[in-house]
Amino acid sequence: MTQELASLTAARAAEAIREGAITSEELVSACLARIEAREPLIGAWAYLDRDYALEQARRADEQRREGRPVGPLHGVPVGVKDIFETMDMPTENGTVLHAGYRPATDAKAVSLLREAGAVILGKTVTTELAVYAPGKTRNPHDANRTPGGSSSGSAAAVAADMVPLAIGSQTNGSVIRPASFCGVFGFKPTHGLISRQGMLRQSRRLDHVGVFARSLEDVALLAECLMAYDERDPDMRLRARPRLTQVMMEEPPVAPRFAFVKTPFWEQTEEDTREGFAELIACLQGRVEELTLSEIFQEAVQWHRTIMEADLARSFQLEYERGRDRLSPQLVEMIERGRRVLAVDYNRAVDRIQLLNEILDDYFYQYDAFLTPAAPGEAPPGLESTGNPIFCTLWTLCGVPALCLPLLTGRHGLPIGVQLVGQYGDDARLLRTARWLERRLATAAE
Amino acid sequence: MTQELASLTAARAAEAIREGAITSEELVSACLARIEAREPLIGAWAYLDRDYALEQARRADEQRREGRPVGPLHGVPVGVKDIFETMDMPTENGTVLHAGYRPATDAKAVSLLREAGAVILGKTVTTELAVYAPGKTRNPHDANRTPGGSSSGSAAAVAADMVPLAIGSQTNGSVIRPASFCGVFGFKPTHGLISRQGMLRQSRRLDHVGVFARSLEDVALLAECLMAYDERDPDMRLRARPRLTQVMMEEPPVAPRFAFVKTPFWEQTEEDTREGFAELIACLQGRVEELTLSEIFQEAVQWHRTIMEADLARSFQLEYERGRDRLSPQLVEMIERGRRVLAVDYNRAVDRIQLLNEILDDYFYQYDAFLTPAAPGEAPPGLESTGNPIFCTLWTLCGVPALCLPLLTGRHGLPIGVQLVGQYGDDARLLRTARWLERRLATAAE
Repeated sequence: MTQELASLTAARAAEAIREGAITSEELVSACLARIEAREPLIGAWAYLDRDYALEQARRADEQRREGRPVGPLHGVPVGVKDIFETMDMPTENGTVLHAGYRPATDAKAVSLLREAGAVILGKTVTTELAVYAPGKTRNPHDANRTPGGSSSGSAAAVAADMVPLAIGSQTNGSVIRPASFCGVFGFKPTHGLISRQGMLRQSRRLDHVGVFARSLEDVALLAECLMAYDERDPDMRLRARPRLTQVMMEEPPVAPRFAFVKTPFWEQTEEDTREGFAELIACLQGRVEELTLSEIFQEAVQWHRTIMEADLARSFQLEYERGRDRLSPQLVEMIERGRRVLAVDYNRAVDRIQLLNEILDDYFYQYDAFLTPAAPGEAPPGLESTGNPIFCTLWTLCGVPALCLPLLTGRHGLPIGVQLVGQYGDDARLLRTARWLERRLATAAE
Repeated sequence: MTQELASLTAARAAEAIREGAITSEELVSACLARIEAREPLIGAWAYLDRDYALEQARRADEQRREGRPVGPLHGVPVGVKDIFETMDMPTENGTVLHAGYRPATDAKAVSLLREAGAVILGKTVTTELAVYAPGKTRNPHDANRTPGGSSSGSAAAVAADMVPLAIGSQTNGSVIRPASFCGVFGFKPTHGLISRQGMLRQSRRLDHVGVFARSLEDVALLAECLMAYDERDPDMRLRARPRLTQVMMEEPPVAPRFAFVKTPFWEQTEEDTREGFAELIACLQGRVEELTLSEIFQEAVQWHRTIMEADLARSFQLEYERGRDRLSPQLVEMIERGRRVLAVDYNRAVDRIQLLNEILDDYFYQYDAFLTPAAPGEAPPGLESTGNPIFCTLWTLCGVPALCLPLLTGRHGLPIGVQLVGQYGDDARLLRTARWLERRLATAAE
C-alpha cells in the first residue's frame, strides 16, 4: 500500500486527497518510507525534516476537513531544488560557501507551490551552484552512474518514487538531461514564463525554472501552477496564464507534424540513441521529416558559452573573490574564462538570440515540434561528471520550451529520453503535441 | 499673422484646426515661412520637403472637412530627429556612412505621430550617430553657440518657432541639455514608456525617446501620443497608458515637496546657474529642502560610461569595422574604449541600476521631484562641442523621468533650464508637479 501510494502520479494523488480517499498524511508518510529505504543509496536530498513534512501534510488535511479552499496540488508533496529560497528550510546552493544559509522569504516558485496547496517535502541536491561539479546523488537505475545535473536530486527523487513532483532549473541542460538519465518527464518552459525571483541566479538570459514528474499530465499540472506573472523577475512578460492542462487534453486540430532535428552534434550520440530514434521515426511515418538546422546554430553553442561564463563570473563574483579555494577547479576555470569575456562579444551573443528565434519561428510554421535527443545516450558511468548537456544548449539559449519524454531504453536497460522542442511561448501546443505522440506510440505498441 | 501662427503652441494650434479657425495648410505654411527665414543661419533640418509637408497638411485638412476622425495632433507639424526611420524621408543618422538611407517603414514613434494626425514636417539634425560630434545646427539665441546635442535640430527648431513640437532621443543628456541651451521644454520620460523600435540604437539600457515643446501642456500632449505599448521594443512593459494631460491639470492633493539636489557635480555649474537656483529656492520657501545624494551616485557616472561605451562599440561595430576613417576621432576613441570593456564590468554596471533606483524610490517617498541643474550654465560659445551632459547622466542611467523647464536666464541673456526629476514610472506626477511649480513662480512674479 505504502509503495503504491508513493508511486501515484500527482494528479491521481491530488484527486484522491480531494475526494477524501486518502489523506495527505498517508501520502507523505508513504513518500517518507520510500525515502528512508532508498535515500542512503541515492542521496537525492540536501535537506529533509520528516516531522515538518508530516506537519505540513496534517495541516493540509485539516484545511480540507474544514472545507477551506483546496488548491490543485493540495496535500501533494513536492521536492525543491536547493537553489530556491525557502523561509522554513536552509538553502545551500550546493556549496559549502553558503552552508547554513536561511533565507527570510520564499522564492516565488515556492510560494506558488504553497498557494497551490503543495507540501514542500524538502530540498533536493544540486550540483555546486547549479553548475557542473556533482553533488552526492546517484542514478536510481544504476547507483554507479550519474543522475545528470544540475537538478540531480529532483530528477532522482521523482524517478525513485520518493516524491511525485519536483522543481529544478536549467541554464544549459539541467532539467532535460537529468530527466533523460533518470527516466522521468522533464519540462523547461519558455524563458520568462516562470519567475526566477528567489532562485540562485547564474544568468538572467539563460536561467529557467523547470519541472520533473512521472506523467505528462503531472508536468502540465505542476508547470501551470508556477506560471504566474511576477514583476520582480525582470524578464517576465505580462500575459495570460497558459491553460496547459486544458489545452494538453484537447485533440490537435490536425495531426501534428514533427521535424526530426539531428542538430550539429548528432555524431556525439550513442548507437542505442540512434537506433531508438530510427524506431521512433518509423512509428511516426508520414508525420515526421528530417530538418537540418541553419548553419548558424553551429556557432550558437559558443554564444551560449560566452553568455553563461560571463554571467557566472558576474553572479559568483563574491564567491570567487572570497572563497575561490572552496570552489571546484572546474568552476574556477569557467569563472576565469568568464572574467575575460568582452562586453561587445557578450552583447553580440545576446543579440543573436533574437535572430535564432526568428529562424526557429519560421520552422515552427511548418512543424508542431522538433524531435531531438535529450542527451547523447544512457547516463554515463561514474559520478565525477553529470554528463554532456550539448543537446539542450541551443534550446536553452533560445528560451524555447523543451520537454523530455522517457521513451527509449539503452543497451544497459537504462532510460534514454526523447526531447520535444516547441515554439517560443507556445508551451501548451508542445504539451498537446507530446500527448498526441504518447498515444500514437501506445497504439503502435498494441 | 504668419509669425503669430508659427509661434502657437501645439495645443492651441490643434484646437484651432479642430474648430476650423485655421487650417493645417496655413499653420504649416507659417512654419515653412519661418524656416525659410531662419534656417540659413540655424541649420536645424537634415531633410525638409516643403511641397510634401504642404501635401500632408492639405490631406489633414481634407480629412477634417470629410468628418473623418481627428487625432490629438491633427494637422500639427512635428520635427523628427534624423535617427527615427521614416518611410517617406531619408534617415541618415548624422553620418555620411548612412547617407541616402531610405527605410521601408516608419519607426514606432513616427507611426504614432501619424496616427495622432501630425504632419511630419521633416527630419531634424542630429550629431553623428546621436553621440557627440556636432552637426550643422546653431543656437537660435546666439548663432555662435552650440544648441546642445545630440537632438540639436529638434531643440533649435522648436526654439526658433520653426515647428511647435519635435521628437529626439537621450542616451546621456541629449534632450535635457539642448532644451536647456535653446530655452524650450524638454522631457525624457521613464525608460520603457516610449518604444525605440525603428530608432537608431546606441544602447538598449540607456536610449530613451524624448520630446521638445514650447509649453508644458504641449509636452504632455506629445508624450501621451507616444506612450503606446510596442512588443518590438523588448524593454517596454505592458501598462496602462499614463493619462499625462489629464493628471497634469489636476491640483496636487497636497502642495508638492521638492528636493534641491546639487549632485556631486555642482562645482561644474556656472555662477549664473547657482544664482538662479538660489532665487528659485527662495521662491519655494517651505516646499524645498536640500538633499545630498548617497555617495554611490558619484560612482554611477562611471557605470553609465561603461555601459554606453560598450554598447556603442556593439551597436556601431559595422560602422567602425567598415568606415572608421569616416567617423569622428572622438567617436572612434569611445568605440575603442568600449571594445575593451569586460562583460563582468558591464553586467555589474547594469545590475547597479536597480540598486540606484531603490535608493531613488526611497527619496521619492519624501519628495515629489528633484530640482537640479539641466546643464552647467548657458550654452557655451563655439560649435565644436555640444556642451557637457553631466547633469543628465544619473537620471538617464536610472531611467527616471526628467523634465527641462526654461526658467532661468544667464549673464549673456541666454536661457538656462531647470531640471525636474521624478520617480520611475510616475511621469504624470512629475508633470503635475511641474505645472504647480510654474504657477507658483508666476504668482511670485506678480
